[in-house]
This record gives sequence, C-alpha cells and structure tokens, in this order.
Amino acid sequence: MTAKTPDSTRRSERSRRAILDAALELVGESGYQRLTIEAIAARAGVGKQTIYRWWPSKAAVLFEACLPEGTDAESVELPDTGDLEADLKTVLRATVDELNNPRLDAPTRALTAESQNDLQLARALTEKVLEPQLQAYVRRFRTAQQAGQIDARTDPRIAVELLVGPLFHRWQTRTFPLTHEYADTVVDLALRGLAPR
Amino acid sequence: MTAKTPDSTRRSERSRRAILDAALELVGESGYQRLTIEAIAARAGVGKQTIYRWWPSKAAVLFEACLPEGTDAESVELPDTGDLEADLKTVLRATVDELNNPRLDAPTRALTAESQNDLQLARALTEKVLEPQLQAYVRRFRTAQQAGQIDARTDPRIAVELLVGPLFHRWQTRTFPLTHEYADTVVDLALRGLAPR
Repeated sequence: MTAKTPDSTRRSERSRRAILDAALELVGESGYQRLTIEAIAARAGVGKQTIYRWWPSKAAVLFEACLPEGTDAESVELPDTGDLEADLKTVLRATVDELNNPRLDAPTRALTAESQNDLQLARALTEKVLEPQLQAYVRRFRTAQQAGQIDARTDPRIAVELLVGPLFHRWQTRTFPLTHEYADTVVDLALRGLAPR
Repeated sequence: MTAKTPDSTRRSERSRRAILDAALELVGESGYQRLTIEAIAARAGVGKQTIYRWWPSKAAVLFEACLPEGTDAESVELPDTGDLEADLKTVLRATVDELNNPRLDAPTRALTAESQNDLQLARALTEKVLEPQLQAYVRRFRTAQQAGQIDARTDPRIAVELLVGPLFHRWQTRTFPLTHEYADTVVDLALRGLAPR
C-alpha cells in the first residue's frame, strides 16, 4: 500500500466519478446487455485495471453509480411534520420523480432485472438501498401509531408495502404513467385502509 | 406446407411439450443466463431446428412454458359469489401459492428480469398474462362498485394495484415470506381503504 498524496486522492476521486458517470451513460445509450468494463474504461478515459481494482463486476459499478452520493443507510429519514398524509405525499411524489428520471431509468431497471438472477447483488441492493428506505417508513408509521393516527394493530411493514407496492408495480409493468396525482391517490387509499378502527 | 396426419400432430405436440418442460427444468437447475437452445434441444431429445422452427429465442420458449395450458386471455375470470372479501382472498391466496411454487420460481423471475430490458418480451407478457388478469380484477371491482361494496369514485385500476402491488413487491424483493395470512391482511387493509364513504 502506498501513501496517498492529496493530489493522487483527488485524481482517484475524479476517476471514480468518471467511471460511474460512464457506466450510467452507457447503460442509457445501449442497454445493460451491451455494457462492458472495456467500454466503461474507454468512455471514462481510464485503464481497465483501474476499474477492476475497485469493482469486481459491471453490476457492482452500476450499483455504486446508482447509490445516492453522500448519504449512508442510517441517514435515510422521512419528514415528520406531524401531518402524516402530507409527509407521505411529499415522499411518494419524490419517489415518482426519481422513477421518472430518464437518467436513472435504464440503470435502475437493469439492476432490478439483474437482482432477480444474481442473489449477491440482490442482497446488496436490499441492504444498502431498499431496507434503509423501508425502515424509514416503518419508523414514521410507528410514530403515527403512537400518535393514534393509524391503527396500532397493523404491522407497519405491511403498511409500507401498501404504499410502495402499487408504485413499484406500475413502474415495473409500465402499464400507466406514474404521476403526482397517482401518488396522492395511493396515499389517500392506503391511509383510509390504515385508519384507527 | 404439408398436410399433417393425426400421428404427426401427436408427435409435434409431444415434442412441443418436451421442449417446454426441458426449458422449465433447465432454468430451475442452472439459471437463465446458462440456458441455451442447444441445451433445451438436448434435454428434450429434439433437434435445434425443431425449436427454431417454432420459437425465435430462448425467452420465447420460456414464456410459452410459463403460460397456463388450455386457457386464453378472455377466459380469465375472478370468482363472484357476491362476497367480495371472500372472493379476493380466494384469488390472492391462489396467487401466493403460484408465487411459492418452486417449479415456477426461476422461470418467472427470469422472465420478469428479461422484460425489464427486452421491450418486445415485456409487451407480450403484459398482453398475454398481466393485462387479462388485471382486467379480470377491474371487472370484479366494477361489479362491487355497482353493488355499493366499494367506493364508486375510485378508479378500479388503482384498486387492483392496491391489492396486487404489495404481493408483487414482497415476492420480488424477497424481504418476507408470502403466506395466506399475508394475502388476507392485504385484502382486509385494501378493502377498508376502498370502502364506500
């Protein structure tokens, strides 16, 4: 291991970002099947070995490229203004915007697809991306249960699935457009289903 | 085109079934990535050309292998005993059983994954499998709306997504087991959300 100077750290970070950007661009342009480490290296202007030093596979590169920068799992938190309906609509509308982001569409679909067949990738996706988000919902629902806003007997985990399941289904099956109005309707119906009895 | 004798029709049908069974078995054993037309032909005891005569790709073979035999899109119908809750629980429990069927797990996941990247396959899946099922739900919800059992202003399409979205999400993310109890809970929560106001 060699000591890194500030300059070489900056160069590394620049290469890393160039590689991640190249992976996102290439998947968008020609699809996951045609994505290769060679093509990513060429687009990023680095050697293949630089990529293999940091990532074991193209799936791993793409996975890191899709992780939000500067956030870690523990920092995912839902808004809590006390108004559960407003908070959930804020979050689900933001999710709709993310799912409609053309830059993220191809890589997100590719990772979703790969994770059906690649259990290691599936576990990484669940651990680093999915669970932190679902857990943030669970915490928000627990607070709402304590405030008497939703039924105390409902498993918060199922409450989450009632909210995110419909969006995910519509996104994945491409059956109808994902809109803010749709997000609001799902929140309205789900909250009615979860209301205290 | 040559006229077919009853014997050659029977032979064709036997080959067809052997090919479909071979595709299902091979995906279960070694995954979709390793599935090849050669391997299917060898397992089924037919020539490669026999497969290429009937199907353009391994995805097409697997797709047909997963279609329920002897049903067409128009014949998909939900039970209607007048008891909406009971009918939906019957259907969702059956869906849970299907999703838990180990023989269908690998091919269904493979097709779901492929359809994220292969738009032609995605369209075929939607048209032949998904839409007929969703439309059957929509018809059942319309009847329930006419009977005053669920709110008349709710889009039946969103009502369907509220039911099937959570199951699909749990299946795809493999986060928690899919059980009959889970199906019942989803029906209970969704119907409360959809109740007349």
